[in-house]
Formats: sequence, structure tokens, C-alpha cells
Amino acid sequence: MKRIASLCLAAALCAAPAFADEGMWTYNNFPAAKVKAKYGFEPQKDWLDHLRLASVRIAGGCSASVVSADGLVMTNHHCARECIENLSGNMKKDFNRDGFFAKTQKDEARCPGMELNQLTEITDVTKRVQDSTKDVAVEKFADVQKATIAGIEKDCATSDEFRCEVVTLYRGGRYDLYKYRRLQDIRLVFAPEDGIAFFGGDPDNFMFPRYDLDVSFVRIYGTDGKPMKQEHYLAWSDGTMKEGDATFVSGNPGGTSRGLTVAQLEDDRDMRMPITLMRMAELRGLATMYQERGAEQKRHSNDLLFGVENGLKAYKGRHAALADKAFYGQLVKNEQDFRAKVKAKPELEKQYGAVWDNIAGLVKKQQAYRKEFNALERGPMSDLFGIARGYVRYAEEIGKPNGERLKEFSDARLPQFKQGMLANRPIYDELEVATLTWSLTKMREELGPDHPVIKRVFGTKSPAEIAKAAVKGTKLKDLKVDKTGNAIGGLRKELLEGGKAKIDASKDPMIELARAFDADARAIRKKYETEVDGPLKKQQELLARARFAVYGDAIYPDATFTLRLSYGAVKGYEENGAQVKPFTTLAGAFERHTGAEPFALPKTWLAAKAKLDQDVPFNFVTTNDIIGGNSGSPVVNQKGEVVGLVFDGNIQSLGGDYGFDESVNRTVAVHSAALIEAMDKVYGAKRLVDELKAPTAAGPKAGQP
Amino acid sequence: MKRIASLCLAAALCAAPAFADEGMWTYNNFPAAKVKAKYGFEPQKDWLDHLRLASVRIAGGCSASVVSADGLVMTNHHCARECIENLSGNMKKDFNRDGFFAKTQKDEARCPGMELNQLTEITDVTKRVQDSTKDVAVEKFADVQKATIAGIEKDCATSDEFRCEVVTLYRGGRYDLYKYRRLQDIRLVFAPEDGIAFFGGDPDNFMFPRYDLDVSFVRIYGTDGKPMKQEHYLAWSDGTMKEGDATFVSGNPGGTSRGLTVAQLEDDRDMRMPITLMRMAELRGLATMYQERGAEQKRHSNDLLFGVENGLKAYKGRHAALADKAFYGQLVKNEQDFRAKVKAKPELEKQYGAVWDNIAGLVKKQQAYRKEFNALERGPMSDLFGIARGYVRYAEEIGKPNGERLKEFSDARLPQFKQGMLANRPIYDELEVATLTWSLTKMREELGPDHPVIKRVFGTKSPAEIAKAAVKGTKLKDLKVDKTGNAIGGLRKELLEGGKAKIDASKDPMIELARAFDADARAIRKKYETEVDGPLKKQQELLARARFAVYGDAIYPDATFTLRLSYGAVKGYEENGAQVKPFTTLAGAFERHTGAEPFALPKTWLAAKAKLDQDVPFNFVTTNDIIGGNSGSPVVNQKGEVVGLVFDGNIQSLGGDYGFDESVNRTVAVHSAALIEAMDKVYGAKRLVDELKAPTAAGPKAGQP
Repeated sequence: MKRIASLCLAAALCAAPAFADEGMWTYNNFPAAKVKAKYGFEPQKDWLDHLRLASVRIAGGCSASVVSADGLVMTNHHCARECIENLSGNMKKDFNRDGFFAKTQKDEARCPGMELNQLTEITDVTKRVQDSTKDVAVEKFADVQKATIAGIEKDCATSDEFRCEVVTLYRGGRYDLYKYRRLQDIRLVFAPEDGIAFFGGDPDNFMFPRYDLDVSFVRIYGTDGKPMKQEHYLAWSDGTMKEGDATFVSGNPGGTSRGLTVAQLEDDRDMRMPITLMRMAELRGLATMYQERGAEQKRHSNDLLFGVENGLKAYKGRHAALADKAFYGQLVKNEQDFRAKVKAKPELEKQYGAVWDNIAGLVKKQQAYRKEFNALERGPMSDLFGIARGYVRYAEEIGKPNGERLKEFSDARLPQFKQGMLANRPIYDELEVATLTWSLTKMREELGPDHPVIKRVFGTKSPAEIAKAAVKGTKLKDLKVDKTGNAIGGLRKELLEGGKAKIDASKDPMIELARAFDADARAIRKKYETEVDGPLKKQQELLARARFAVYGDAIYPDATFTLRLSYGAVKGYEENGAQVKPFTTLAGAFERHTGAEPFALPKTWLAAKAKLDQDVPFNFVTTNDIIGGNSGSPVVNQKGEVVGLVFDGNIQSLGGDYGFDESVNRTVAVHSAALIEAMDKVYGAKRLVDELKAPTAAGPKAGQP
Repeated sequence: MKRIASLCLAAALCAAPAFADEGMWTYNNFPAAKVKAKYGFEPQKDWLDHLRLASVRIAGGCSASVVSADGLVMTNHHCARECIENLSGNMKKDFNRDGFFAKTQKDEARCPGMELNQLTEITDVTKRVQDSTKDVAVEKFADVQKATIAGIEKDCATSDEFRCEVVTLYRGGRYDLYKYRRLQDIRLVFAPEDGIAFFGGDPDNFMFPRYDLDVSFVRIYGTDGKPMKQEHYLAWSDGTMKEGDATFVSGNPGGTSRGLTVAQLEDDRDMRMPITLMRMAELRGLATMYQERGAEQKRHSNDLLFGVENGLKAYKGRHAALADKAFYGQLVKNEQDFRAKVKAKPELEKQYGAVWDNIAGLVKKQQAYRKEFNALERGPMSDLFGIARGYVRYAEEIGKPNGERLKEFSDARLPQFKQGMLANRPIYDELEVATLTWSLTKMREELGPDHPVIKRVFGTKSPAEIAKAAVKGTKLKDLKVDKTGNAIGGLRKELLEGGKAKIDASKDPMIELARAFDADARAIRKKYETEVDGPLKKQQELLARARFAVYGDAIYPDATFTLRLSYGAVKGYEENGAQVKPFTTLAGAFERHTGAEPFALPKTWLAAKAKLDQDVPFNFVTTNDIIGGNSGSPVVNQKGEVVGLVFDGNIQSLGGDYGFDESVNRTVAVHSAALIEAMDKVYGAKRLVDELKAPTAAGPKAGQP
């Protein structure tokens, strides 16, 4: 984060055309001409369409790609981690530690609750959304917009097969309706051991050089219980790639903050981030120690610890970027320039001049509500509590008109709500007690023991007593599933089917606990949405218009977990005065092996060492502009062939949330050659290798430059 | 932190005379006339001398006062917590949970390693210190100053009975030599149950209203094994006190940062604090979960958890103050005013004009070295490692001339070093493994697995393997003590007596571990002291001179864990629009009792409820300006009698590190009447009550207004 002072961070704020390889571009506004100018290759519509259609999103927060005609999907190990741990729990194995390979197609095992989304259609609904709120009072803004969006999504979601989401782009400059096909029978095909998928563990996370086989393969099954044939899938490259080669990453970056105002950045740096960092750090300490309770408990909490450590490191990096005076100073300067440009034209100044101060005022309000909002609406951390709250809210929401419900209960979103409620994930009582106790303690800490909600709900009980009673007494684990994991009975299904009457009658202690908090949680959410969120949306729409007016529309929107395409090239970088080379090799992994976790290669690798070609490239870095959510994205070459699998960004990429610095910000990927070498020689997964390398005649020919 | 914008924080930076009750004044610069103007009472020399001489410091970081002719000393429960836990460990009891009362004097139990310091003399050594560095090159500044100070301290410490410390006041504006009598046979007399000492626990910590009996009594014993007679001790008040009454607090505030420049404040807010907060939060999660391993483990880790939670809450409050735009803005404005005043006079500008920028440059350097300094020199967290490092350094330092040693090994400081090495504190292997594993993991995280020190020391081992091997293999717990806790044999004593030859020959695995880090730790310390600390001291001396030149010398210095006197009055305050009354009563404690920790009154209290006068005032607040380190300070009235015992500040006082806001910053104390009522009726500690209330004819008559 040191070499950034002279750079223009965030294209949207720069007068010059988009900076270098910066940008998480929407497919319908991809700067193909710029790519041609820099890399001599101009992606055409067919090329873009094919890549887009072979890209899939994992509903839980990752990216992936279809890589065979039989619905084979490639993503990261860490993106299928929840599936791997859930299957381990249900099948009494430890697939995370030992790996998983379905020797035959019959052995492929359904991932509880996992859903893939395939983007089928994008419709611009900006006018409909913006018109609906044009003349409404600011305190009604959130409600009216929510109702409009619920209506649009309902019109689109004609069956449970589709997920329709109105997404906000350019922070309100544009609203698009994204229609996805929901693929819900997803089965695990292959996952290596965590020891190689996450070799180097937390110390090496977000670092490079790197030696990780962070891959998993799953397969899409249709409602007929057979692999679902795919028209669009990516061809596999021959593995040749060199520094300077152009690379494209298609995936779903989760969110960036490049369009925030300085008042919002300041809030991030001084308040929001420190609060989040402390909370995550405390949870990390807790989970670390929980792991020591025993092998079972370690397995149960692996996913939790991984998530916390990964998030913590990412947030630390983001905070460090904001704490860097040069970096932050550049963001301040960008805003000053933008404001000066607005001020220079009286008609712009009249329309938009007050936006920054208005947002600063709303940030103050946001800060005032944050504590209660986080404590009550984000609520206690427990799977069972989450399920219980789901029922409590479902009972109340389901009777309301579509547009008046909490947005996660709108008609278009109900199918995924129900799917979540009936997902056959293992739930571990001991871990539930630990996380619920802790999060209730934090709630009391944040609100204070004299807060009326705490006094009423806690009464004379300690957080531990409340948690133990609720976890031990609840029957919400009761769920019967068929052999592929579909819910066919049990309390969870009965409550959902029984609806309001049945849920209201329930005396289940976890439901009672969720109920005890609910009115207050709803109240603060309502207040927040009405007084902060709605007014902020309105101001952000104005800001977006100002930005288009000043910088034109050849700019990319902040990431919003929607499909984006970024371009770049294989390229090393300089760190602490030394040049970091863009490729590592398999040999490097063996050199880094110490035998002690997290630097212990799995036995399978040690056994296969002699067979492996040590010179095969293992991981590599590119200049593609990505962020969390891009995990699992394919890296393709000009021919549209898979040359790699994104699994990380380097530590310098973490400031990418606020701005892109091409000199050091790097995407980190597994090389396609390493994937083949390992599956072939370490895991004997010949049937997969053959499937990946099968000719692609079935699909439209990929990537004709 | 909301009502501060219009206030002038930090008298030293204000042109007007010291603001309201602000100030942690040295006894030799106490603003008696100001006190008279405000409270109609002017403390005279006798009054001040008596209070000063009855004040004692606890070497570990607290304040205390002598309250009987027989050497009875009053402090907080939390200041004797380490003693209580150590005695519990050695005597296989849980005095923290159950309380401790020595029914007869014979039952008073020696606190392992506890030391009280009685200030006997203060000498101004400014000229000698400053002259010694006047013409030396800046990179030699730290070394030369260290040598000068070691010399001064050695001349003063004529025997092991004395502790001599040159303290820096006004951040280099003045250097004073403080001579203390070391009182090392300190025995525990009385401590209530943690359940009432810390009633409300972490949730109520730094809060008011409050209901805590945070008291303990210890007694000073002489080398003859008998209670040491005291000439100066405080009389006990009759317990009458009302809002508006003047109060004086004599104690040792640990440190404040009111003289920092904005560059340093910015570093605090954006870097130093977030790093510290995250580390503490993680350790808190770890300790919380460790407590659940069992009753024994809970007891072993109580002190750790308490310390971490207390520190974390204090740091959060400090960070929140800096994150408050109004508060921070005022600090920025103060500096701007100060700089403008310097600039206005050419001779001042010439001498001091560059100081602020110079300090900003040094802050950058500090940031660059911080990671290595923290990881290597602050080092792994383990009592055994600390002891091992003590030996390794002792062996190396002891052969050097006094002025060239690391300062903790200077002749004047050696006695306390040795005392620490031979203190009979219980050490718990399981907890040692946990904290050492964790801190080694953090070290690897901070430095990265490729840092040469990590590669060399860790080799192929994991942090857990290293920690287990060192803790299990070490013999450093081997220490034989007589019945009062004096070391009489064992490896620890032998190593100290054997000196360099014996220590160098040791193959003890913990010593080997300490040795493995030592050269690197010393190197970064040296670099830090030479390139950052020394130059910073030099700039700070200049800044202090500038401050005297602009504001005169009727100002108080930043706190430095030296004896200070603050004045104020009993006074409520406004919070969230409501008036907080200054007193609570015993009745309030019973109302707050829920039965669940930390809101569970001890059984002794429930049993005594009927006997207790419920209207007796329990805790109260005053406007005295204090900070951490003042814990255990007596609150005295105009007559110099004890009316209370400081144990906390309210949450609004935490920003007091950077500036004092009289409207809300409050000292929180136990009322003297509650102390008597509880000791009498709950604990039947009549012999103590009688001792406290005994006529004070033996001492000089206190406080004649």
C-alpha cells in the first residue's frame, strides 16, 4: 500500500479514461475496445455470451464455471467447504481433512442446501424503480422502493425454478433485473484435502508466492436426478501461458466501496471497521480455543474458524488501506476533484451540490442506530436461532401483501427462504451453545444490561443459561430427508406447512427466544430503513447521476455480487524492493512443506512426489481487478479456455475495496496444468481429467479472436 | 463524548487558566490557590505533606493509602487480584471466589512478589539529564540519556531498600528523581468475594450507577516480620458527604497522552489502537473459552481474563474518543492554536517551529518498526518465557558497565528485577501452553512465515509443538521458598546466583527458546531506541519548552505513574438526557441482583441483607481528573479523612487519556460508609473496623483547613 500516491484510484472518479486494467465490468458495458488497445484482442458478442453463460454463481457467495457438457462445475475448495463439512457431519466422515472423490457418478453426494444460479436474463428496470419513488416523501422512500422491487421480482419469478433479483448498480444510478435459473441438486464430485487446498493456512492466506490446490468440482443435477446437460461450458486449455498473456476473469465480486463519499470512508475507518475487526478477532480467539476441545469439535468448527480468519484478514487489509495516509489522501482528493467539477457547472451544483453534506448527515444517523441494529437485527449467532427467527417472521410476513413484507419474504424470494429452512445441514449442539452464549453476551455488552430488551429477555438468567436451555430444549433439528436430501417430514417441514397458526402455537424454546427479540429487532430495522437507508438511497441516486454527468457512462459500477468480467494479464510485481515472479511450481510446495500444520502436505502428495512433474506451474498472479465473491471464478485466455481458477487476491489487493492499484493489486489463481497434474497423478481422478479434456464440439466454439 | 465540542481539552494547551477541575497535579506544583477560589479551602504544606506521605504505590500498577498506625493499607480488590489468585494457587483455595479475611493478625498471608513503594524524596535532575545530551548527535541521544539516568539512579539507590527512578515529566520538560522505599513483605488482610468486588462484571465496568465493594486491605510488614509502624496514615471520616463537597484524590495515574501531537494522535487512532484492540479482543475470546475447560482452569485464568476485558474496554473508550469528530477536532484545533502562537514569535518559531513535522516523520519510522518491535521485543506471552528471557538477558547485561545496560538491568533496578525472578507465583502449565501457543502463532502471523527469525526458530515445528515442548521440558518452576515466601533455593535461585556461567550453560528448553529470539529482539530494540525513541525524546523536550514558553509553568504534566493530586467535588452528570445522581445505596445492589453472574450477590450478602442499613451510600462519583493507575487511590475530604476509595472512572472518562471534559468525566469510588457497613455486618471484620476507626493521635493531625 505504499506505492499508490501518484495513482488515480477508482476509474469512476478519474477524469482520464479507465485506468489500466481496473474495473469489474458488467457484461453489457464491457470496454472491449480498450482491451483491444492494450492486448490486441477484442472480445466479440459470441465470445462474451459464451463466457457469461458458462459462468455460474454459488448462492452462498462464490463464483464458479461449467466445465463439461455433463454439468461439471469448477469452483474453489473453500467455496464448497460448507458442503464438504455438511456431508462429513451427515456421513460421519471428515472429508475436509481427508478429501473427497466420487469414483463413479453414483458416488457423487448431494450438498445440503447448496444452490447454483445461472444468469439467464438481464433487464433494465431503472425507469420503473426510479419513477416509483420520484415524488414520494423521503421517509417513504425505502417502503415504496421495496414494494416496487417486490412487484418487479414477482412478475419475473414465474416459478420456483427462477430467482429474480433487482440489483442496484452505480449505487442507484441503474437498477437491473437479474433472472437466474436456480440449480438446487448440486452434488460433490471432488475435493482435495484441506491440507493442500489451503496449504499455508491463515499465514499464507492473501499471500503470494503460493502453493494451493484450492479446487472442488460439483455437478449440476436436474429434477430427474440425472446430470443436467449444459449447452455452454468452458473448454480446457493446453496449459501453456506466459507472463504478459491476457487473462479474463468472469465471476461475482461481492461488493466494493469505491463510490463511497469521504464521510462514509471516515465512518468505515474510524467506526464500522474497528467494531467489526474487534468482533471478528474475539470470535477467532473463541473458535481457536473451541477447536482444542477434541477432534469432533475441531471438525464441527473448522468452517467457522476458516470463515472468521479469512474475513478478519481481509478486513484488516481494508482497514490498513484506509489508515494509509497516501491512499486515503488520494480518495479525499478524488472527491474534492469531483465536487469541484460539479461546482463548476451551476446546473449540476444546483441539482447535486448538497449531496455530500446530506450523506454526511445520514452517516451520523447511521452511527446512532448502528449498535441497536447490529445487536438486535443481525442478532444472536446460532443456526438454530436463525431457523427459529425464520419461522417467527414467516408467520407474520406471509399474511401481508407482497410489497409490504420484509424483502426476504417477498413472493419472488420465498422459494429460497424455504429452501434454506429445509436444508439438511448438520447442527452441533455444543457449538450452538458456544456461539449463542457468546453472541448473547456480546448483545448485552453492546446494549448494556439496563437496555429494556436485555432486561426483559434476560431477566435473571445469564447468557449461558439462556443458550443452554434454548439449544437443549428446541426440536428444530427435527427434519426428515430422502436419500438425496429433499425434506420429506419432521417438525421443520410441519411448521412451514402449518404456517402462521402452527408457528404461533409453538412453545419451542428457541422459537420463544426468537419471538422475545422480534418486535424490537423489527422496530430498529424499520427505523433504520426509513430514516437512514431510504434517504441514503435517494442521495446515492443523485450522486450517481452527478457522476454520469461529470464522467460519462463508460465507467463500471461498484461490485454487488452480480456477474462481472475483468481483464488483465499474467504479471509479477514488486514487494519490499524485490520482484515477485508470477508463477510458482509444484516443486515449491514440497520446499515449503515442514510437516507441521498449516505447512504439512497431505500424505497423498508426499506419496505421489516422485510421479509429479515438479516443474508444472502451480499458482500464478494476474492484474485482473477482483474482490471477495470472485473466489471460484475461472481465468480464461483469449480463446475462452480455462487457464486457471481464481482463489485469492494478494494482500495488496485488499485495499481494492476502495481503489485499484495495478502496480501491486493481484489476483491469485491455481494453474490449469496443476489441476490436471494433481487430479491425474495424486488422486487418480482419471474420469474427471477425461471429462475436462473432452472435445468441446457439443458447445458453441469458444473464443474466436 | 458528545458534549465536548465547545470545551477546551487539556489545560496545557489552553490559553486560559487551568480549566475547571482538570489536572493530575504534582504535589510540588499543586494549584492550591485555584482550589481555594473554587472550593473556599486552600490546602497547606502540612496537609499536602501528610496526604503525600500516607499515599503508597503498588509496584504492579495501582495506588493505595496507609490507613492505620500498624501499616494497614487500603487498595482495590482488583489491585490485589494477583496476590489473591497467587495465594489461592499456592494454598489450593479460591479466595477470589470466596473472599479472604485473616481473623487474626497471624492469618495474614504474604503476597508473592507484591511490592509497595513509599515515596520519600523528589529531586529535580532536569539540568543534569538535559545537559548530558545537549551536544550529542541525535542517534546517540537514547544511549547517552540512558547512561545519565542509570548513573543518577545508582547514586540514589544506596541499598536494596530503595527504588530510585528518574521520571520524565512534561514529556521531557522536566526530569525528577523519585526515591521510594521498597516495602516487600506485604500480607493480605481482607478481600471480599469477587462477586461483590466486581459486581456487574464486565458489563458494568466503567459504568455508573454502580454497586461494587472493590476493596482489599493488605498490611506492610518489616524485615523483622512484624507490622511496620507508620507515622503517616489517613484518618477515617464519619461518612457524611453530600453533593458539592470538595474531594481530593491522591494516587498514581499511569499515563495520559494529552501532550501528543496530531501526528501521534492520528497514529493512535488509525494504527496503534486498532492493532491493540484486535489483539486484546482475540485474547479475550481465547480466555473466555479457556475458562470453560473446568473449575481449576477458570480459576487459573481469571486474572488474565479480567485484565484483558478491563484493558479492552478502556482502549475501546479511548479509541471511541479519537473517533469522535468533535473531540478529535478540538485536539486538532488546540495544536493549531499552539503552533500559531509559536509562529507569532520569531524566536520561538526559530527554536520550535519544526518540531511538529519532525515528530510526524518519527511517527512514520515508528510505524515501520512497530511490527518487529512488538513481535520480538514484547515477545511471546508466557510467565515462563518471561522468566527465561530474564535469565538470558541478565547473563549478558550483568557484565556491562551500569550505563550501557538495558535500563531494567541498571544497578538501581536490579533489586526489583531479582525480586520478580524469585517471586513465588504459581504457574499453570496448561495455561502457559495456551498463551504461549497463541502468542507464537500471532508472532508468525505478524512477521509472516518467511521472516528469517520465524524460519530459524520455528523450523519445521508448529507453534503448539514449540510451546508444549518448552513448557513441559522446562525446570524454571523450580523455586524453594520459606514460609513467608522468601526464596531459599531451587533452580531459579541457583541460576541467578550462578550468573552468566551457569545461565549460559543451561540447556533448559525455555531458556533455549528465549535465547533463540534474543539477538533479534535486542537488535530491533536497539534500532527502535536509537532511531525512534531517542530522536523523539529530543523533539519532545523541545515541544515541552515551547509549551512552557507559550503557556507558562502553571500547568500539569502528562501522567507517568508518579504521585499526583487531583481536586474536584461530588457531582452527578447528564447522560442520554437524564440526570445521573452522584450516590448509590446498598439497596440498589439488592435490586440489581439477578442471581446469575455477574449480577449475583455473594451468599454472605444475601444472608446479611436484613442486618444491613439499606440506605447507606455504596458508590459515588466526583469530578476528580484521574486515569488508570489511580485505582486504589483514597478519596479524602478537606480534613484529609478517607471518604472513599477510587476504583473506576465512568465510560465518559476514558477519553480522559487525551482530554478532560468536566461535564461528564467522573471518578467512581466506594463510599467509606459502605466499607464500614459491609466489613462490620457482612464479614464480621470487627478488628479491621476498629483499626480503621482508631483515633489518629499517633499521626500528625490531618487537614486543618
